[in-house]
Amino acid sequence: MAETQSVNQDGCPVARTADLISNKWTPLIIRDLAKREMRFSELERSLKGISPKTLSERLKRLEDSTVIERTCYPEVPPRVEYQLTEKGHALLPVIDSMREFGKVWLADEECD
Amino acid sequence: MAETQSVNQDGCPVARTADLISNKWTPLIIRDLAKREMRFSELERSLKGISPKTLSERLKRLEDSTVIERTCYPEVPPRVEYQLTEKGHALLPVIDSMREFGKVWLADEECD
Repeated sequence: MAETQSVNQDGCPVARTADLISNKWTPLIIRDLAKREMRFSELERSLKGISPKTLSERLKRLEDSTVIERTCYPEVPPRVEYQLTEKGHALLPVIDSMREFGKVWLADEECD
Repeated sequence: MAETQSVNQDGCPVARTADLISNKWTPLIIRDLAKREMRFSELERSLKGISPKTLSERLKRLEDSTVIERTCYPEVPPRVEYQLTEKGHALLPVIDSMREFGKVWLADEECD
């Protein structure tokens, strides 16, 4: 299924949120930015295994959806940082409930 | 990115849960089965736009992960129903928090 295919239907708020965050990396980007603002290279290191192309796409999508904002500091070389917006912070209960479920119900599963 | 590619890393419970539910249809299957047990054809109607192949794959994955269980009633013709397990019910706080976010933050977005 194409990444861009929408499952929005009947105005369901679960479907709308799924459209925004239901891919394999986005919850982890939000998890990491919950701690502090981060640079692209820091996110890339934290999200082990993500390709730069995929990370760029995910960040662009989240920026377009006003979940994160990108700040460019006029230094030499320029420093770009990503941080959660108020809307992004409002997603933290979703991440927290995912964390709770994972701790209780997926704790014994092998991580690979 | 392939559907089966894992983002599990560092034993993070958010990543484990993302591996299980972070695709575009799974949250909606859990949303629907939260109401009552349902047949394949009922889910297919409820999840407008899902292909039978995708629905089969998602249900199989959820059954393998013991999030749902499949009951075959020996009738003529046989009736097969899907329902949430205890583990599946434990995912409802994730769905609820997605619903809350969607209601508050995505209410004005166009649904398509």
